[in-house]
Amino acid sequence: MSSPSSATAPPAAVEQRRPDPVRFGIMGCASIARKLARAMLLAPDAAVAAVGSRSKAKARAFAEETGLLRHAPRLHGSYEALLGDPGVDAVYLPLPTSLHVRWATAAAAAGKHVLLEKPTALCAADLAAILAACDAAGVQFMDATMWMHHPRTAKMRELVADKATTGDVRVINSLFSFRVNEEFLQNDIRVKPDLDALGALGDAGWYCIRAILWAVDYELPKTVIALRNPVRNQVGVLLACGATLYWADGKIATFNCSFLTNLTMDMTIVGTNGTLHVTDFVIPYEEKSASFSMASKSNFAELHIGWDPLPSKHVVPTNLPQEALMVQEFSRLVQNIRDAGGKPEGKWPAITRKTQVVMDAVKTSIDNEFGPVDISS
Amino acid sequence: MSSPSSATAPPAAVEQRRPDPVRFGIMGCASIARKLARAMLLAPDAAVAAVGSRSKAKARAFAEETGLLRHAPRLHGSYEALLGDPGVDAVYLPLPTSLHVRWATAAAAAGKHVLLEKPTALCAADLAAILAACDAAGVQFMDATMWMHHPRTAKMRELVADKATTGDVRVINSLFSFRVNEEFLQNDIRVKPDLDALGALGDAGWYCIRAILWAVDYELPKTVIALRNPVRNQVGVLLACGATLYWADGKIATFNCSFLTNLTMDMTIVGTNGTLHVTDFVIPYEEKSASFSMASKSNFAELHIGWDPLPSKHVVPTNLPQEALMVQEFSRLVQNIRDAGGKPEGKWPAITRKTQVVMDAVKTSIDNEFGPVDISS
Repeated sequence: MSSPSSATAPPAAVEQRRPDPVRFGIMGCASIARKLARAMLLAPDAAVAAVGSRSKAKARAFAEETGLLRHAPRLHGSYEALLGDPGVDAVYLPLPTSLHVRWATAAAAAGKHVLLEKPTALCAADLAAILAACDAAGVQFMDATMWMHHPRTAKMRELVADKATTGDVRVINSLFSFRVNEEFLQNDIRVKPDLDALGALGDAGWYCIRAILWAVDYELPKTVIALRNPVRNQVGVLLACGATLYWADGKIATFNCSFLTNLTMDMTIVGTNGTLHVTDFVIPYEEKSASFSMASKSNFAELHIGWDPLPSKHVVPTNLPQEALMVQEFSRLVQNIRDAGGKPEGKWPAITRKTQVVMDAVKTSIDNEFGPVDISS
Repeated sequence: MSSPSSATAPPAAVEQRRPDPVRFGIMGCASIARKLARAMLLAPDAAVAAVGSRSKAKARAFAEETGLLRHAPRLHGSYEALLGDPGVDAVYLPLPTSLHVRWATAAAAAGKHVLLEKPTALCAADLAAILAACDAAGVQFMDATMWMHHPRTAKMRELVADKATTGDVRVINSLFSFRVNEEFLQNDIRVKPDLDALGALGDAGWYCIRAILWAVDYELPKTVIALRNPVRNQVGVLLACGATLYWADGKIATFNCSFLTNLTMDMTIVGTNGTLHVTDFVIPYEEKSASFSMASKSNFAELHIGWDPLPSKHVVPTNLPQEALMVQEFSRLVQNIRDAGGKPEGKWPAITRKTQVVMDAVKTSIDNEFGPVDISS
């Protein structure tokens, strides 16, 4: 019997019954956690065993609002209490970024697998501490970059990796912006230097950097140069910025991220043989299917009065939303460790680390008046 | 009786009959001239009166191949002879760029209106000489950037200029590449330093720069910085390059142009309120209609599981291909001067000049190791 993901399949002896679901603890009741709560209800291998917040009342309100309450999760009035809950296998951690080092390392030390919101840390050194703690504890680490888990992403990978279809990738552009309101600009954690000091770079820019690294199969760029004229708020947090990334072989990528312009989620990949366009890569327009456009070996029609062939549109349906597929994939990895003596999958922390390293370089280039920053891989 | 383009309408006295067509001379039998010959046959206000080449045999072969011969154009064996033809009102000039100053100024001095292929000149100073000659002779100048004349472009302008729909434009990305073959890399005029020394920048980059300027209603950027690692051939001609343009108010544009990657023609405009995507802006996929996508005031759906509203697709049909519309517009302007004592329309040379000025700045930045180049407007 073959499995599409043999690395994470349980050994033959236990194939008889479905493994027990992974028991999640939701650690912090941020707005994004509502989406994850729903995803955990949808994902077949997950259950929400506990919710932890700074007060039990908050945890209860969250459980009520999200429909978790009827599943009777344990409600904890502190993060420590959640981490002390022996009925929790894994935590989902959507706290402000400045709290990630403290609580992700504490979670790992408590033997909990860690699904961590992005940006995973304020800098690569902080992330290294988190990953070291996960490594030492033998727990799975994954960042909560949902689009990685949509089947569209796998389909795009297949075409981008195919030399006949795409050839060698040479240029990548990514845009992620959304226009926030005055309330956000005043009060959201993502504009506060003590909470999410990376601002738009950490939030929207994370996805752009990930998209670019994804497009080149995670080869780190050699040099990063930030775009000039980033926009900052009065306390110095980035509201819009961008960068260009250069690889030794001549590949070039540019991204812009912003809290100040209309919702835009572009990834464009241009190779020697093909071009891929996706305009909703972070969150698909609709939940049940997602599309992208691929042009391959496009020529001018005779007399240059059109194209031949035309690009094709690929539509990829999905039974579960991408965040539920993320929870499912994470849960499989945790089950493999918990139930089958498997090891943590190293691919996910490696991708996270590279994303954070590039983000550090962008930040450094901005701080150094847009000078080039070399990355040692 | 109102006219959609009142500046170019003939005075009331001659409205009784259709003005005589503009009598074009095609000056040089480049491959692109075949497309223009067809456009002149399609455009209602144009006729091909003459073809000039370096030999009469070449001119005849071109006229035969393009179907012009049955209209019995005069065939000239030199450019001088064409310019001496009193039955020619205007020339279309698709010669290699290095010959533009000489022949466009000669055409103007001979009293011919000038429709000039892009890149219009090797540098802004050369273009200034051409425009001065046209100005002194009182002839119309227009560059042959065809997409400017597609009704899709007018529709996009309407939406981009609308503050409610697009808001303030903040980010523009443009890509234009096409993958050439070995024959092109060895022999095309666009890789020869003595013919089209600007290479991919002059050819594909022209369109990207024009798209960016178009998107900001032709406000010149303050600073231009070329992207690093341009690709050159063995004799130093650019095969791929790019740049980032900065405006004083924070607008940012990036473009990449190349002879080495798959056919790609993107213009993406992100404003505070809206986002426009077009992926075939230079030459529409098909001749009879062209589309673009516009998203305005896009929000995340509840729980961030989709978009609300979705972007809308705009399809703009056209009765004539864009190059015939260009010929028609140019012809109307010439008729207004020839038949109605009108003055040349200054909008077109002004746009050309700005495109060339930005191109100069990109070239200078590349030559100055990617340092910033300021543009004085």
